Amino acid sequence: MFAKPHLDDRSEMPLYRQLHDEIRDSIRSGRLAKGEKLPPTRSLAGLLGLNRTTVSAAYALLESEGWIRGHVGRGSFVTGEPSGEVSRLDWDQLLAGGPTVPAPPEPAATPVISFGTSRPSEALFPLDAFRASCQEVLRDADLAGILQLGSPGGYPPLQRYLLEEGRRAGWARPSDDILITSGCQQAMDLIQRVLVRPGDTIALEDPVFPGLRNLFLRASAHLLGVPVGPEGMEVEELERLLAGHRVRLVVVGSSFQNPTGTTLPPAARRTLLRLARAFGAVVVENDIYGDLRYRGEDVPLVKRLDASGDTVLVGSFSKITFPGLRVGWVVGPRPLVSRLAEAKQWTDLHSDQLAQAVLLRFAESGRLEEHGRRVRAEGRERLEAVLAACAEHLPEGSTYTRPEGGMNLWVRLPEPLDTGELLPRAQREGASYLPGCYFEVSRRHRSSLRLSFASVAPEKIRAGLAALGRVFGEAVERGRSFERRASVPAMV
Amino acid sequence: MFAKPHLDDRSEMPLYRQLHDEIRDSIRSGRLAKGEKLPPTRSLAGLLGLNRTTVSAAYALLESEGWIRGHVGRGSFVTGEPSGEVSRLDWDQLLAGGPTVPAPPEPAATPVISFGTSRPSEALFPLDAFRASCQEVLRDADLAGILQLGSPGGYPPLQRYLLEEGRRAGWARPSDDILITSGCQQAMDLIQRVLVRPGDTIALEDPVFPGLRNLFLRASAHLLGVPVGPEGMEVEELERLLAGHRVRLVVVGSSFQNPTGTTLPPAARRTLLRLARAFGAVVVENDIYGDLRYRGEDVPLVKRLDASGDTVLVGSFSKITFPGLRVGWVVGPRPLVSRLAEAKQWTDLHSDQLAQAVLLRFAESGRLEEHGRRVRAEGRERLEAVLAACAEHLPEGSTYTRPEGGMNLWVRLPEPLDTGELLPRAQREGASYLPGCYFEVSRRHRSSLRLSFASVAPEKIRAGLAALGRVFGEAVERGRSFERRASVPAMV
Repeated sequence: MFAKPHLDDRSEMPLYRQLHDEIRDSIRSGRLAKGEKLPPTRSLAGLLGLNRTTVSAAYALLESEGWIRGHVGRGSFVTGEPSGEVSRLDWDQLLAGGPTVPAPPEPAATPVISFGTSRPSEALFPLDAFRASCQEVLRDADLAGILQLGSPGGYPPLQRYLLEEGRRAGWARPSDDILITSGCQQAMDLIQRVLVRPGDTIALEDPVFPGLRNLFLRASAHLLGVPVGPEGMEVEELERLLAGHRVRLVVVGSSFQNPTGTTLPPAARRTLLRLARAFGAVVVENDIYGDLRYRGEDVPLVKRLDASGDTVLVGSFSKITFPGLRVGWVVGPRPLVSRLAEAKQWTDLHSDQLAQAVLLRFAESGRLEEHGRRVRAEGRERLEAVLAACAEHLPEGSTYTRPEGGMNLWVRLPEPLDTGELLPRAQREGASYLPGCYFEVSRRHRSSLRLSFASVAPEKIRAGLAALGRVFGEAVERGRSFERRASVPAMV
Repeated sequence: MFAKPHLDDRSEMPLYRQLHDEIRDSIRSGRLAKGEKLPPTRSLAGLLGLNRTTVSAAYALLESEGWIRGHVGRGSFVTGEPSGEVSRLDWDQLLAGGPTVPAPPEPAATPVISFGTSRPSEALFPLDAFRASCQEVLRDADLAGILQLGSPGGYPPLQRYLLEEGRRAGWARPSDDILITSGCQQAMDLIQRVLVRPGDTIALEDPVFPGLRNLFLRASAHLLGVPVGPEGMEVEELERLLAGHRVRLVVVGSSFQNPTGTTLPPAARRTLLRLARAFGAVVVENDIYGDLRYRGEDVPLVKRLDASGDTVLVGSFSKITFPGLRVGWVVGPRPLVSRLAEAKQWTDLHSDQLAQAVLLRFAESGRLEEHGRRVRAEGRERLEAVLAACAEHLPEGSTYTRPEGGMNLWVRLPEPLDTGELLPRAQREGASYLPGCYFEVSRRHRSSLRLSFASVAPEKIRAGLAALGRVFGEAVERGRSFERRASVPAMV
């Protein structure tokens, strides 16, 4: 039975702890039995002449230790002596909130030919060239400096190398500066942190890779999807959106866009710049696939076409070299880059310097260029294989993009096929892909899918697409037979 | 002179662009002269039967191209043909907002003995052991896997190694999981991103290292400083704060806290846990200095004392090995770590795998342990040197902490000396430090300073403190003579 606890005003121990200890001791000694109800906080506070929050704190501590349990509307009940290790925090509640983004698909149980990830082929990694670059770094007279705390802006020799490259190639101006980031994803995250406030409107290609969409969603931005046609972002549609909304950023994958593989033609790039200027939007150009052109003519970067110098260019070594080394960069006007470097400092101080030093040696030594030639030659073969296999195996009524480079191709199956629903069947048949639902911004892409072909050898591309073709073809057939069945008149 | 433009409703070109082109052509041809005023948007819209935003868009484009310039309240004026490269965006305005944090102090012009940075000594880097670890990674049968895209959680062999270490040492429980981060700073940033909403209240030690304070300030959190005494965070004061505010996180540098070098005793750790439980706050324990004990007895981690398993532990290789390699970690309850890994994915995909693999070899091979012994032996000498030099050189009335490890010691000079004001003079005398103002949370620390002694050789510690002693002693003297002068009665 609950007895009035004795508290000592003059004790050094706070009152809520005295109350906690009294009740705990009563439970321990059995004076308060399991299942008994404690007095409501309000009445106990009145009885003891205490503030109600003092009683609440004592009950909270008792509950967090497992001595009692509160039930909303019914009060707190003795649960008995607590036992063993129990989490006292309600992690579900602490972690609640924030927009939900689709979880990545379950990996297949059996090994499959995977078109699911936009990454280079391990089989093409130039391991000896990588080892040689490492050895040079290990012999560097300033190895200790590489291993010491660095600067938020990046490893200075790499910053200088890239800026000189950029000035030579015309994508870095005297008014520009560079920040080294932990890959393109961090570059985008820092841009978001510095330039985007909750509720700001951002224009993204639709479809777009999930990392970009999720990043801005998490930042509570309002997202507008600009449809992507056979020639990249549809700038006429962008114009309509800019006229109707106050858009802060336009993010564009100008070459071999992820997921469609499309490239924005020069005229559309100029239009994009004119529109951004007219409506005061910042253009962020994501060029991480730009060096992976397998055929056709080079197109000048949006950043290079921009006489104002305001375009922000994001690049990375990850797609052309080794994604496990996280080195990307942002080039843009000095005031912006200076703020990005400040944000970088409170995000993770600076990027790993060993990776920066090794990739610098890889580039400076000419190994990057040599590797690039090989990767492009292999890429061309893979691109031809995937285009031929699409033509051969996809069911009638399918459409797909014709990339000239990069790692990805976008397929639209005849409606109402749902590529998310079909994925498990495809995996059982030995091939996987990323369904269109992961790439949605403002539009649904349930009948579409991304084929990431760069990491798959040509013969596997053919085999994988044959498998996908069977699964999709059967689904079309089932759909037809369903239509036929459905068209049998009801007996009335 | 401004003539009514001719627009074509049926044209495919949007009206604002037609208007833009008409005005631009008028300026180009000289029909509109430099300095001439354009009609107000409202009246031009009325004249042409257009929406006012259409006219505004045309004017904005003209202005962004440099043809006209708007002056608030006076209207828009022709500036003539634009020339050359000009930024069209107002970066100052785009970058406005966000709390300001103090800029780091200017580096000294001449080489000085620097107590300014909490980092290890380059001279102690075990370069051969590092090279050997790299060579082993370069010979790894799965080198290609290390260079390939990794997983947000971290390089799995390193995750396993650390979790096993933690289970052996008692700081990782079966209910815990681990996330590898790009150093401790990113661990804190991810915790903030997942657990803190704008306006949430966070309790930090006061003084605390600026990276932590700035991170939460940027996240628009409300910061409460818990004073730090000779034995770390004052838990009695924490109790008062918790009773008066709804605190979400308590971040504690349990051992060799940055900047004070103090360590929380076991009893205070237990009190901290009890308080956090009673008030439903999450404890984040920053243990990046914990392995750097130079004397005295080891104290069990707060995480280890926490039977509930809810404490979140942050660790890092940076302070004990090479800060240029960015590898830290968070250990905590699975639901939290799973959300942190999700955040990691949209922040930067995953941490650099080369650094993770090299540090794993460094640890597994026993080289980390061997290096730790040497670092601690050297650290003991440096700690003794800095304590002796403080006793010898600091002016009377100064107080300072007595760390038993770590990299930092906290000095309080007699008031009203201002360590920020004295820094340039100290640099001219050949020594620098970080003034107390960089470490403020709720209190002023203008008379205090941090001495980071770990990267300074003992003889330089002595020389540097002799220089600082001279500068501070003179300042005290000047203060006294000022007092004497000030006490001469005014002639009335």
